[in-house]
Amino acid sequence: MAKAPKNAISPTRAEDYPQWYQQVVRAADLAETSDVRGCMVIKPWGYALWENMQAVLDKMFKDTGHKNAYFPLFIPKSYLEKEAEHVEGFAKECAVVTHHRLEADGEGGLKPAGELEEPLVVRPTSEMIIGASFAKWVESYRDLPLLINQWANVVRWEMRTRLFLRTAEFLWQEGHTAHATEQEALDETAQMHEVYARFAEDFMAMPVIKGAKPEHERFPGAVDTLSIEAMMQDKKALQAGTSHFLGQNFSKAMGIEYQGEDKQKHHAWTTSWGVSTRLIGGLIMTHSDDDGLILPPKLAPAHVVIMPITFKADDPDAVLAYCEKLAEDLKQVTYDGQPIRVELDNRDIRGGEKTWGWVKKGVPIRLEIGQRDMADDSVFMARRDQSPKDKAGVGRQEFLDTVSDTLADIQNTLFERAKTFRAENSRVINARDKFENYFKGDKGGFALAHWNGDVEVAKKIQDDLAVTIRCIPDDGAIDDLLGGPNEPGKCIFTGEPSEKRVVWSKAY
Amino acid sequence: MAKAPKNAISPTRAEDYPQWYQQVVRAADLAETSDVRGCMVIKPWGYALWENMQAVLDKMFKDTGHKNAYFPLFIPKSYLEKEAEHVEGFAKECAVVTHHRLEADGEGGLKPAGELEEPLVVRPTSEMIIGASFAKWVESYRDLPLLINQWANVVRWEMRTRLFLRTAEFLWQEGHTAHATEQEALDETAQMHEVYARFAEDFMAMPVIKGAKPEHERFPGAVDTLSIEAMMQDKKALQAGTSHFLGQNFSKAMGIEYQGEDKQKHHAWTTSWGVSTRLIGGLIMTHSDDDGLILPPKLAPAHVVIMPITFKADDPDAVLAYCEKLAEDLKQVTYDGQPIRVELDNRDIRGGEKTWGWVKKGVPIRLEIGQRDMADDSVFMARRDQSPKDKAGVGRQEFLDTVSDTLADIQNTLFERAKTFRAENSRVINARDKFENYFKGDKGGFALAHWNGDVEVAKKIQDDLAVTIRCIPDDGAIDDLLGGPNEPGKCIFTGEPSEKRVVWSKAY
Repeated sequence: MAKAPKNAISPTRAEDYPQWYQQVVRAADLAETSDVRGCMVIKPWGYALWENMQAVLDKMFKDTGHKNAYFPLFIPKSYLEKEAEHVEGFAKECAVVTHHRLEADGEGGLKPAGELEEPLVVRPTSEMIIGASFAKWVESYRDLPLLINQWANVVRWEMRTRLFLRTAEFLWQEGHTAHATEQEALDETAQMHEVYARFAEDFMAMPVIKGAKPEHERFPGAVDTLSIEAMMQDKKALQAGTSHFLGQNFSKAMGIEYQGEDKQKHHAWTTSWGVSTRLIGGLIMTHSDDDGLILPPKLAPAHVVIMPITFKADDPDAVLAYCEKLAEDLKQVTYDGQPIRVELDNRDIRGGEKTWGWVKKGVPIRLEIGQRDMADDSVFMARRDQSPKDKAGVGRQEFLDTVSDTLADIQNTLFERAKTFRAENSRVINARDKFENYFKGDKGGFALAHWNGDVEVAKKIQDDLAVTIRCIPDDGAIDDLLGGPNEPGKCIFTGEPSEKRVVWSKAY
Repeated sequence: MAKAPKNAISPTRAEDYPQWYQQVVRAADLAETSDVRGCMVIKPWGYALWENMQAVLDKMFKDTGHKNAYFPLFIPKSYLEKEAEHVEGFAKECAVVTHHRLEADGEGGLKPAGELEEPLVVRPTSEMIIGASFAKWVESYRDLPLLINQWANVVRWEMRTRLFLRTAEFLWQEGHTAHATEQEALDETAQMHEVYARFAEDFMAMPVIKGAKPEHERFPGAVDTLSIEAMMQDKKALQAGTSHFLGQNFSKAMGIEYQGEDKQKHHAWTTSWGVSTRLIGGLIMTHSDDDGLILPPKLAPAHVVIMPITFKADDPDAVLAYCEKLAEDLKQVTYDGQPIRVELDNRDIRGGEKTWGWVKKGVPIRLEIGQRDMADDSVFMARRDQSPKDKAGVGRQEFLDTVSDTLADIQNTLFERAKTFRAENSRVINARDKFENYFKGDKGGFALAHWNGDVEVAKKIQDDLAVTIRCIPDDGAIDDLLGGPNEPGKCIFTGEPSEKRVVWSKAY
């Protein structure tokens, strides 16, 4: 068997975090860059992870009364022009369709032809195009609320891309809702914010802080943007999901009006909310180690991989049969309400290569099974949340009886570990110099400091230190990091009164 | 209660079939046209149907060893140019991205800016872009077969569009596979052809003829194209799914090479296969009647709708509670391996409007429940495959005990009905004049006639009669229509020998 390398991923996190990330993605075979500028290919292992995320989220959306629908990929230029802030936010980086065919260019190649009367933009987000439909669908207060979700691809022409975290094309869901009253729309915005936080913590095992974005960080056209913010292992923040209260901005731009019980016409109140394949980047950077990806069991494409390991003197057919029977028995066990997902890897490659392949792919439980394990009616087990060296023999039946609990324990361990890391790298800061010192160089994590709401101050800090306000936390959202409630105080930059501490950090 | 109109859909099928189709789509709230040329909006009821189709197909693909992945939306122009027939087939109608931002045009509007060095085409199909990835992924025979599927949106700039049947953007799945040998690729092509036929017949309740396309009707770049062909109620054919054997055409164009066991380099053999939201159009036109959509139970977003119908003197709360309990009990019953899907419609609208709304939406079983039904511990039931007048009281428990069988019976009735219709509208034809007569005017259905394989003859018939060869049927595929095996004979146009009869029809 191949001798295990010191670490499966090179460079390690400590050596070069961004490079480590790329190598983890590569080693786990999750995705790769394509020849098309900024577009990625999501490979089967990465896509299976996304499918599991989709399944959970889709159920959460449906359980909260939303229905899926599908709207056009293209947005007429004139639609975008209807909301000033919105177009400002998206016009600078979008894919523009100007022609509808290719024809011979006379040099053996092809050139665009059939110019469109009005250019079309490939959707960077769908407020305008879905708003146009809502305007048709809504007539009376009886048609409200309208609770719609779309699973789709979107395109934003990013100049500097990074697999999952920032790509020109990405996959996401975007919820769009319309309501008769402001309060209902606010409640919806808060509800989906909570759904995202629950998904991040209960399924991705990624602790998040719930809060509101400061004014200058809101979604273009939104009245309020709520986000969940997670800490990656390089102590930077990742915005992992946003829920926007859009007020009547988009309903006015697109004409979403209803007749109320009062027989009068009113503009509806709308919301939108989304999470994307960026979550996969967050999951990777929250849990993975220097041996590669670590998958939270609830979302893992495979919970258990079974590897028959045999040598010349062994009876490989008997070992394989033993493994196949075990796989069948495992599929009868449920974890998190579903049958256990099992991979049986009988490829004819060296045992070391096989084992390390699955370590790097992040499967929660690995079983290596040889002639002796079979003879002992046992399995040789390793947990991905522990060192690759911590392998142990377990009786076959005992393994089957406890596997579901073991997976739950791995899920829980990952969450607690991430929470501990976040706590260790968050600091209450009460003075500007300490704040600056905290972030100088590549140090710093989350700073919990008072701010009086002055946008110019926040922008100056961003320019000087590349540190931003991640959110104005919800009540109770950072009490565990503060060791108590978020009390009023004084802005550390201006000395002005501040209602509560906000979360500052470098970010993706 | 409102008096039922003679028919819920106007015009009827007999009066104006194309208009009837549009009205069925509208009345069932499945989809609508958008302001974006040729693009449709798939509304929640239509999308839920698509989700059910997706779930079944996705499982069939995974059960046959395929994995999902995701590839870029954009295809560089230079990729398309690599396969001559392929580009010829798709260049004439495609969305071309030429710029990557919008900027102020000086007149208060926006204009495209940031011209791309190389134009990008929004994928009309992904052979080239997926081929580029396959070329990277395949090195050795050990990497084969590569069995990939993608769920995606695609764009073909159709000039004359029709909801679901032909739209500029549509949703589909496209399978792409690479194999070491020609035989394996041929087997894969045949296997997916069979999967599609099974899906159409067992789930959509839509009988199909399996066969091969004649040479001039093949997918651009394919060596062989297999299709399933269904008969709509206007007796026209609908091509409902295709499976292509691509030979080495695309592997040569994109460089998909592997090192064989013989240590030599070889080009892989590839296939591709797809079905789209067009299937929804086929489902509608196979089963619906002059009262609207009829859904095959296996794919229906709701199997049963429960409508409390109460009057002033009644106790509406008690009736609602009775309905809610029934809904809960129904969800404990399984049909086709899944819990029964129930809608409880307690909207405060007139009973007639409510009932006809669900008739038009095609729900297999409707229950109207009033005070008296509750008192009798019964339900008042109507089946969508029967006349709206055929309603009957059934004991509550009897209904629960038989509902699963009733749904199975509806599924079966729809299939048998469609098969009978197809048989009644298919004819064995042995002479050219009879053939022409059969199709003159708006008559005709499927003609089963001999053809010697001459493409020019087929093209002439198409020009003269707008009739095409739908397929050269597989062995046994039309034996039920012929009343025996498909024997050799003589071409009715040329008198030349013909191996077997082929299927001729007008088509969508």
